[in-house]
Amino acid sequence: MKKIDHIGIAVKDIVASNALFEKLLGVSNYKTEEVESEGVLTSFFKSETSKIELLAATNSDSPIAKFLEKKGEGIHHIAFEVENIQEEVQRLKEEGFLVLNEIPKKGADNKLVVFLHPKSTNGVLIELCQSI
Amino acid sequence: MKKIDHIGIAVKDIVASNALFEKLLGVSNYKTEEVESEGVLTSFFKSETSKIELLAATNSDSPIAKFLEKKGEGIHHIAFEVENIQEEVQRLKEEGFLVLNEIPKKGADNKLVVFLHPKSTNGVLIELCQSI
Repeated sequence: MKKIDHIGIAVKDIVASNALFEKLLGVSNYKTEEVESEGVLTSFFKSETSKIELLAATNSDSPIAKFLEKKGEGIHHIAFEVENIQEEVQRLKEEGFLVLNEIPKKGADNKLVVFLHPKSTNGVLIELCQSI
Repeated sequence: MKKIDHIGIAVKDIVASNALFEKLLGVSNYKTEEVESEGVLTSFFKSETSKIELLAATNSDSPIAKFLEKKGEGIHHIAFEVENIQEEVQRLKEEGFLVLNEIPKKGADNKLVVFLHPKSTNGVLIELCQSI
């Protein structure tokens, strides 16, 4: 595991939340990107070496739609940058962590991503991400 | 707002969670510190330029005890480092954010801390922290 790459925050209205986080962080978002396969619209803010990723649902089957329905707006996941995602998945599996998708999938921001189930990580959804 | 200083995670059992995060992050915790005024026991892990702070309750009146009862284990707050906490509080108040404690209090890790109400920040409890 390297540094915290970003913190993902589930929001209902990306336009309103972009304005809110711009005021909070004192910087504008630098990128908006849709991940069609996940049904999410993402918006990124830089915070020195890490990032804040806002996540809004683009359809009712999106994991973000389900999260918002169940828990409301708030922190959705923490993402850690890794150098070799397959090696790290293997290591974490051997340590007893529950891997949600063993085959890395294409996420936002040019990353391959794998998630760990919150059940095995103190209720925290952890994303591993490797730059492509 | 400068960088993300740390992410606070509420846990039930600090010993078990220290072992879990040691396995997850591949590093040991470097500090354990009790904040008596808040009824919390904290444990810190370095993740390059940021930190992970585990938080366990030391009594039933602790904000962490209440959080665990209501939401279970999981991410509790995001802390951003600021240079001048009083100026930042003033700026954020003028921007319409709801400040939970206008007078900075002494937190763990030699910091003065102020919290923003999640109601004004998309459901995210935000901590501002300034090194003492």
